[in-house]
Amino acid sequence: MKAIINVALKQGVLDDQGKATHHALDTLGFKDIVKDVRIGKQIIMELNSSNEDEAKEEVTKMCEKLLANTVIEDYQIEIVG
Amino acid sequence: MKAIINVALKQGVLDDQGKATHHALDTLGFKDIVKDVRIGKQIIMELNSSNEDEAKEEVTKMCEKLLANTVIEDYQIEIVG
Repeated sequence: MKAIINVALKQGVLDDQGKATHHALDTLGFKDIVKDVRIGKQIIMELNSSNEDEAKEEVTKMCEKLLANTVIEDYQIEIVG
Repeated sequence: MKAIINVALKQGVLDDQGKATHHALDTLGFKDIVKDVRIGKQIIMELNSSNEDEAKEEVTKMCEKLLANTVIEDYQIEIVG
């Protein structure tokens, strides 16, 4: 079983990395098409678990304890396979 | 229109960040459930475009030029909304 966890900065939190990337894209000639860029993390985890609910519960604990800084970041968990 | 771009290290490329996270999860008591961790980037982009094909083409160019290091990374593009 696999978990895909997307961790992104909350709306309103300054995203330096996204801003720098946006600026770089502007200078590369994509100024007209790019309106906003935000960058987060995608964590892909292989799990020893056959129960989807249990897996999601464990991954939620991992996010709260380590994977996300819940003061400034939101996370989404998707369990697949 | 919005593009979601997932950039991940290719299979076989050492993922230090993933390894460190895996180790940290082991020490936090998730040793039994976590088999493997890999960490990539998720880039969320707002686009000034109403044509899905054109948007995908432009974003592919951005990935090749800036967003992904295609020697060691793979990318996936999803156009939504």
